[in-house]
Amino acid sequence: MKKISILGATGSVGTQALEVISSNPESFSLCSISAGRNIAKLEEIIEEFRPSLVSVIDDNARKSLASKYTDIEFLSGREGLLAIADDDSDMLLTAILGSIGLEPTLAAIDAGKDIALANKETLVAAGETVMARARERDVEIVPVDSEHSAVFQCLRGERLSEMKRIILTASGGSFRDLTREELSGVTLEMALNHPNWSMGQKITIDSATMMNKGLEVIEAKWLFNADVDQISTILHRESTIHSMVEFNDNSIMAQMGTADMKTAIQFAFSHPDRLPAPNPMDLDGMTQLNFRPMDLGRFKMLQFAYDALRTGGTMPAVMNAANEYAVAKFLDGEISFTDIEKVVELRMNEHNPVQNPDLETILYYDRLYKSDMR
Amino acid sequence: MKKISILGATGSVGTQALEVISSNPESFSLCSISAGRNIAKLEEIIEEFRPSLVSVIDDNARKSLASKYTDIEFLSGREGLLAIADDDSDMLLTAILGSIGLEPTLAAIDAGKDIALANKETLVAAGETVMARARERDVEIVPVDSEHSAVFQCLRGERLSEMKRIILTASGGSFRDLTREELSGVTLEMALNHPNWSMGQKITIDSATMMNKGLEVIEAKWLFNADVDQISTILHRESTIHSMVEFNDNSIMAQMGTADMKTAIQFAFSHPDRLPAPNPMDLDGMTQLNFRPMDLGRFKMLQFAYDALRTGGTMPAVMNAANEYAVAKFLDGEISFTDIEKVVELRMNEHNPVQNPDLETILYYDRLYKSDMR
Repeated sequence: MKKISILGATGSVGTQALEVISSNPESFSLCSISAGRNIAKLEEIIEEFRPSLVSVIDDNARKSLASKYTDIEFLSGREGLLAIADDDSDMLLTAILGSIGLEPTLAAIDAGKDIALANKETLVAAGETVMARARERDVEIVPVDSEHSAVFQCLRGERLSEMKRIILTASGGSFRDLTREELSGVTLEMALNHPNWSMGQKITIDSATMMNKGLEVIEAKWLFNADVDQISTILHRESTIHSMVEFNDNSIMAQMGTADMKTAIQFAFSHPDRLPAPNPMDLDGMTQLNFRPMDLGRFKMLQFAYDALRTGGTMPAVMNAANEYAVAKFLDGEISFTDIEKVVELRMNEHNPVQNPDLETILYYDRLYKSDMR
Repeated sequence: MKKISILGATGSVGTQALEVISSNPESFSLCSISAGRNIAKLEEIIEEFRPSLVSVIDDNARKSLASKYTDIEFLSGREGLLAIADDDSDMLLTAILGSIGLEPTLAAIDAGKDIALANKETLVAAGETVMARARERDVEIVPVDSEHSAVFQCLRGERLSEMKRIILTASGGSFRDLTREELSGVTLEMALNHPNWSMGQKITIDSATMMNKGLEVIEAKWLFNADVDQISTILHRESTIHSMVEFNDNSIMAQMGTADMKTAIQFAFSHPDRLPAPNPMDLDGMTQLNFRPMDLGRFKMLQFAYDALRTGGTMPAVMNAANEYAVAKFLDGEISFTDIEKVVELRMNEHNPVQNPDLETILYYDRLYKSDMR
């Protein structure tokens, strides 16, 4: 029985993770959870799972929950996240959004917990620090993103030294068939309509701008100890192949499946075992898989990510923070879709990167470049 | 340095294996070889590799070679094959054609050698015996067929108990776009024109009849300890995905690459290592992969193989022998393409299978059903 805690339980990954847990009661149990502002959803989870510790953002919400569920411990804010990181679970799923996930992830590593990593910003902002800490504590970082889970599975039983190249597949997002010129007229509603995957708003927008793939490139570097030149991307409309690894003998391993996050979530929890799951892929229905070379001129945000990775230091954190800022503005209707890219480019250009930054420096620039900066 | 001997060195797999050996002189060396009647090709190999022991079919050829190359030991016939099986190599590549490979393969297993298996008939005729012997002697049987090499690679680091299904891909062969009605007019020349792979004549015809996939289904059963219901096939025109494994959690692993036997041959030799190789697949050129459910009504020979496997006993050996007989007749121009299927069906129908046959019984029926039977 693996005891699992979840940061970000009410989000898209969090709720699917809870389904995985409730479908496998002999294998997994829920320990602690954190949630944001969706208290109605949180109460449903509390009723079903009775976690021992619950953390929310808002202290007023904490008080009202604590008076209602007297057998459960409630905390709030940073203190709550750090308490979950230090609970008695075996694995922490970091499904919380944004760089706020970084500190509790490091705390959980220090506490010797394995990490099921769904929070992209952790490795994008502080990959070197996090992976070094995980190695020190002999803690495993298992990816939950379908692309990285695919790479992780392709590397099972293989040697990293024999890996030639990681090939991340990209569906292309909501606007894959539009030219750069056609992007100027797109709306928020159009951007939120992802062709293959049902995900949260932020990641759906990141898919449409291709920044999502850029973040994944940076994550892949850290997760699999790869050089930037060892990470490539390919457009693959159907998202059936979740990603591939090419080895030095030219053999290419690919992991495939339905566009269902639960497969990767369950694998992160069950690894090194695989557990039976319902709803296999309908291979009879798979008639055609399409591929196209990635165009970094069309998808400039992906180029930015490669640039940030090559620059190193604080630049990936700054790129990520600038993107979080810009996407939030877009979701609020304050800027247009094409402005997202302009904001990120502008902020990256004005940043003078610090090499070998400590965690405080990273967090400082993260906060700065996520703010209005004036 | 792995010392390798080859049964069938002048054939298609044999010559490609020799290229792999000469491209990796620090990793592999050639020990002994057998050849058939292509003495000119054999002499080229002797000049380049100077093997210590050479076996040929014909004793007159042996005498003439022995007088020419006095530093090399020459043998002929069964005695020669068995001597190679018992030489001081580490691995035997069985690239010899037909059931004649069975006895030396068993002898090599008894001598404690790992087997790089390219001879389909060994497992089709006597899979249970061969695999049991290999387990006893703690000898590894590494497949060389691209499909089984793919499955073998998909299973690296995985547990057989968590395998749900093997999915062998089939290009469909030379006549994949013809209906059964259109098959009656096809010629030998048309049958020998495989769309993807450059292979020997027998296997190219077997690809056109789909018997090749049938033999692979039976091999897969024994290699991977699978139930017949765990082995499925799918039509895949491009042969880019060499085969797949579906696991109990619905994750599907696939191995991909160019239609180049050398990748699988080299992997069989280098395993568990992977060695660098030239000519990677051009992923930019991969624009579309097509799939179609297999149609066992259209490809009756594949249905025969499933039937033979379900019947068990001597039936798979008889099916294989009947197919060898029929294909030889077709290659000699004595019967038509569609007659191949009829001959195999007829011979299978008239066979009364013996369950749990010993090796002598298998070899008896193999000889019988390969003969004119009157």
